[in-house]
Amino acid sequence: MRSEFEFIQHIKKQYSLSAIGDDCAVLPKDSDTDNVVTTDMLVETIDFRLDWTTPELLGHKALTVSLSDIAAMGAAPRWAMLSIGVPEELWTTDFLDRFYDGYIQHAKRARVELIGGDVSRSPDRLVIDSIVGGEVPKGKAILRSGAKTGDAIVVTFRLGGAAGGLRLLQNGRRLTDDLESWEANLINMQLQPWPQLGTGPFLQQIGVISSMIDISDGVSSDLLHICNASGVGARLDREKIPIDPNLHHLWPSPDEQWNAALNGGEDFQLLFTLPSDQVPQLAENMIGGNDHGLFTVIGEITSNPGIIEVVRDGRTEILEPHGFQHFE
Amino acid sequence: MRSEFEFIQHIKKQYSLSAIGDDCAVLPKDSDTDNVVTTDMLVETIDFRLDWTTPELLGHKALTVSLSDIAAMGAAPRWAMLSIGVPEELWTTDFLDRFYDGYIQHAKRARVELIGGDVSRSPDRLVIDSIVGGEVPKGKAILRSGAKTGDAIVVTFRLGGAAGGLRLLQNGRRLTDDLESWEANLINMQLQPWPQLGTGPFLQQIGVISSMIDISDGVSSDLLHICNASGVGARLDREKIPIDPNLHHLWPSPDEQWNAALNGGEDFQLLFTLPSDQVPQLAENMIGGNDHGLFTVIGEITSNPGIIEVVRDGRTEILEPHGFQHFE
Repeated sequence: MRSEFEFIQHIKKQYSLSAIGDDCAVLPKDSDTDNVVTTDMLVETIDFRLDWTTPELLGHKALTVSLSDIAAMGAAPRWAMLSIGVPEELWTTDFLDRFYDGYIQHAKRARVELIGGDVSRSPDRLVIDSIVGGEVPKGKAILRSGAKTGDAIVVTFRLGGAAGGLRLLQNGRRLTDDLESWEANLINMQLQPWPQLGTGPFLQQIGVISSMIDISDGVSSDLLHICNASGVGARLDREKIPIDPNLHHLWPSPDEQWNAALNGGEDFQLLFTLPSDQVPQLAENMIGGNDHGLFTVIGEITSNPGIIEVVRDGRTEILEPHGFQHFE
Repeated sequence: MRSEFEFIQHIKKQYSLSAIGDDCAVLPKDSDTDNVVTTDMLVETIDFRLDWTTPELLGHKALTVSLSDIAAMGAAPRWAMLSIGVPEELWTTDFLDRFYDGYIQHAKRARVELIGGDVSRSPDRLVIDSIVGGEVPKGKAILRSGAKTGDAIVVTFRLGGAAGGLRLLQNGRRLTDDLESWEANLINMQLQPWPQLGTGPFLQQIGVISSMIDISDGVSSDLLHICNASGVGARLDREKIPIDPNLHHLWPSPDEQWNAALNGGEDFQLLFTLPSDQVPQLAENMIGGNDHGLFTVIGEITSNPGIIEVVRDGRTEILEPHGFQHFE
């Protein structure tokens, strides 16, 4: 069965839709600025479960998924719209008030104004479509297609935390339980992820980033998007993957931690590339440098189109993308 | 139970969201132009039934609902995005190919480029969120809030056809049946509505339109939106409502025809107001004048906030809005 990505490539080619295929679409605004726009649909049961979260956290996350796409273009968010299909049993509760409360508190922090949307009925499942628009200096949006052979591959902060939180929720742990701090940390990373709103524009401003994507499906899938869009491959150093330090409580085996960090989705960190000789400049440009490990070089771009290699104990394996993907 | 409209008014007030409340949100683009953006969610069972339509017609209609909002601002559409949640049983058929074919053929005619979206999985029901952006000269978007006492109320073309088509579909008639021409006309108005893409910008250009909305929920509901946004009331002359001429086959009783024309949704015609003394200018500005009844004056704006009167046989009744509204 063809995947979502294959279907999107298919209609893009069939109808010559050249604008499709990045985290956001880019549109000209004025002589100095481009607009960027993104839309993300979240469907109950597939993308979230109401008994695993709170209405406020769901509102927060619905906005994060789109803000993260804006950050991945190096852009700053400006406005948001929200379409929501609501089952009648939720309409009669305080669900919507609490959902919008979480959404709008997050919007205020992100300096995004909710300017419109659609509130509609759904027969049984909650459906959310989150739309955010932003701005970036003209011609400066960071696309997936600019990675070059020899570029360093960098990720922000730590990986795998959201996957760890998902596993805990699947195991029956809830926010309302008496949680260990590492459990609370992981579950919060799954239910209340934060977009890299400061880091995205910072990376755009330093002017040396060749490609970028947000890690929504998992490093393996999202890096493959960059490789395919750029016509390149990648080699990752498995020891360098910045694994979330809470994960060792959940998975004592390093292999399972690596699996979560490489293939787990929804971390909403950024993955980007830049010429290797520009890596020192990254830390120099940061206030306080990279002492807190905000950026980690995890590998380099190669000339093997679409092939991701992982170096482990001196041996090289080919990585199959295992990130979250529907219909496979 | 509060309605969708009441909920939207509630969050608009609670969070001071002043931009919410028109067919589109208006955003500054450059020194000459404003951007407009709209989003509309369509949920299977509530907004459409797959066995009543074809994938191509559903793609067409998903775009029409949003193009119509753009037209209602007096704006021209420029780009579109589409989020779609697809049940697995549709994914394995040619449904998506045919849906996008209908959508993109319509987009090409409307000179709108599909620039992005989200293809995602849904457990059982198809969900579509249609997003369209457009442009209008700076400060010239036609809002719902500009109607003034004494203004003429005008609608485009004919009303009630889509409601007639809906009734036929509810009665079991299908496009694939051996239909009378009036049945085919009505069903097509329900399944393949056309947005007023030429008329919207034409009305903006003549510069005398004080308020406008598209007729998606029904004249009674949509006129009430204009009255509430403008702080005015309205008086309609029932005899002047331009009833779709196909309806008399379905409903021999004039009362039922009027009911469909006043309360039936999804005609996607435009309803607008302008100073009464400017009405002759409307026809003068049209190529060929108003001979084909593109515009019909159906009443006038009054100073009774939120009250819609209907004059019938010389007697005045108060109209309760009966247009399509969820959760009532």
